Amino acid sequence: MRDDLNILILSCGTRNKIVQYFKKELDGRGLVIATDCSNLAPALYEADKHFIVPRMNDEGYLDEILSICKENNIKAVLSLIDPELSLLAKHKQDFLDIGTIPIVSDSDVVEMCFDKYEMFKFLVQSGLPTVKSYIDKAEFYSDVEAGIIDYPVFVKPVRGSASINISKVKTKEEVELLFSRFDNLMIQEFMDGTEYGADVYIDLISTEPVAIFIKEKIKMRAGETDKSVSIKDEKLFELINKFVKRTGFKGIIDIDIFKVNGEYYISEVNPRFGGGYPHAYESGVNVPGKIINNVYGKINEDTIGRYDEGIHMMKFNEVAIIK
Amino acid sequence: MRDDLNILILSCGTRNKIVQYFKKELDGRGLVIATDCSNLAPALYEADKHFIVPRMNDEGYLDEILSICKENNIKAVLSLIDPELSLLAKHKQDFLDIGTIPIVSDSDVVEMCFDKYEMFKFLVQSGLPTVKSYIDKAEFYSDVEAGIIDYPVFVKPVRGSASINISKVKTKEEVELLFSRFDNLMIQEFMDGTEYGADVYIDLISTEPVAIFIKEKIKMRAGETDKSVSIKDEKLFELINKFVKRTGFKGIIDIDIFKVNGEYYISEVNPRFGGGYPHAYESGVNVPGKIINNVYGKINEDTIGRYDEGIHMMKFNEVAIIK
Repeated sequence: MRDDLNILILSCGTRNKIVQYFKKELDGRGLVIATDCSNLAPALYEADKHFIVPRMNDEGYLDEILSICKENNIKAVLSLIDPELSLLAKHKQDFLDIGTIPIVSDSDVVEMCFDKYEMFKFLVQSGLPTVKSYIDKAEFYSDVEAGIIDYPVFVKPVRGSASINISKVKTKEEVELLFSRFDNLMIQEFMDGTEYGADVYIDLISTEPVAIFIKEKIKMRAGETDKSVSIKDEKLFELINKFVKRTGFKGIIDIDIFKVNGEYYISEVNPRFGGGYPHAYESGVNVPGKIINNVYGKINEDTIGRYDEGIHMMKFNEVAIIK
Repeated sequence: MRDDLNILILSCGTRNKIVQYFKKELDGRGLVIATDCSNLAPALYEADKHFIVPRMNDEGYLDEILSICKENNIKAVLSLIDPELSLLAKHKQDFLDIGTIPIVSDSDVVEMCFDKYEMFKFLVQSGLPTVKSYIDKAEFYSDVEAGIIDYPVFVKPVRGSASINISKVKTKEEVELLFSRFDNLMIQEFMDGTEYGADVYIDLISTEPVAIFIKEKIKMRAGETDKSVSIKDEKLFELINKFVKRTGFKGIIDIDIFKVNGEYYISEVNPRFGGGYPHAYESGVNVPGKIINNVYGKINEDTIGRYDEGIHMMKFNEVAIIK
């Protein structure tokens, strides 16, 4: 039992596929254990073992997760929701002390991903192409007058996810109205082009990106990719490589990218498994396998671009039942 | 081959579960054949055989479907999208003439379902409890003054689906703004209560409702039930029975119901398989089996309420891949 490679997936929610993939890749070498604060999280029931835990913000939450790790000989832990990535990154050492590796980037990098304006500033300073963003509306108006940017633009929370509270805005009056109603908004250029998602794995030992899978998003639903097709482009692989190394990401991340007039622009990063990751796995880009290698102390070889173009992914609803 | 009970599912989209259930219930007694206008409709690839067809509004569409029915010895046809229900209902005789039974209510009933204000008027005239609705904003304002209704209210298109363009409105100014911008809107009472969905099968031969499955909606996502729990209530079974018989529905329908202060109110009807039907099937309410019985000329016995309470359904994403 001491040598088992048990993996803990926190806040598993509806991400059944991720649980399935880890089970398949472990292939009996260890258990996949899942947690959620709701017993109506269907992915719980895919796991070999599961725990219903308190809400993440409840007192004692971290201690409960740490003791689940200790008692179940967990070798690696990861979370599928954003706020918990902050927690894992901040308390990385607590997990390492009990022999559990948190699969997450460092705290400063994770926090930058959740602040879209900080990410924008970092990208600009790094000389990487990104989406024009403003938190100062006066600066935005002055750029409109100077012809640097034009309506429509998106107004959205600096911190936010899943397309919640995003408004497409066509006039100064609407910008004023939104800024008068809500705090911590930013104005972002409307990118009239094609949207891509990249699933990237950065080896935990070599710190090199070893897998990049790029999909063109064909159809979105409630902020998630519903249909997509795999593509390859050396120019985009290079841009992602440069960005990922400069930022210092670790483990699995998901990058949103726009292409407008033949140029790529980095938009946002989810420093975790993205909702579209199953497309990468089903196309042969096996991130759970690479995580398992790393936990065994093995360095992964570079497999960037080792997949076929033109593979289409389509989501549909499966149901889980509890009686 | 001539005796096979082949079933055609039109505009199958992402409704893989419906295709799976028909295949399971036919159990080799015939083929399930599916169509869609997009090759990225994952349910196509669940079927025994599939056809990519033109868009429903393209010229010659009906003839193409009729010839698929003829050439594949189709005994029953059904559609999973609203506009096509109108087409099937309107041309019922054309299908019957070639030996194919369209599983759909009559044309006038189908059309009433798609006009939320017509449905409201019908329910009021029938003395059935429903959600207060207005197309005349002056009448609404006067009812606000009389204390018959109060803000917040919903403003939504008279014809519309999947929660698209629904606004929760708190002031007269907002009502005015929306009515000045869009045509064919209605104002609907905000029901502050619990939401239920009922899957009902009305026998095609006896014209009696023979199955009712009621689920309480726990969580919605993009206008669809994401999590639900089965419930039973004789009072609601009776209300549904009365409503369904008075209206003259046929085949499978999905009814939205609210419960406020202990009273049930009928809201809307989708005269087809609802997105939450898998909950009913997985709880033993086997509508594909009843359809197959009817196509064989057998009358279904009354099975209303034959399922357990407290069965939870949770959706999650499955993926289909085409290379």
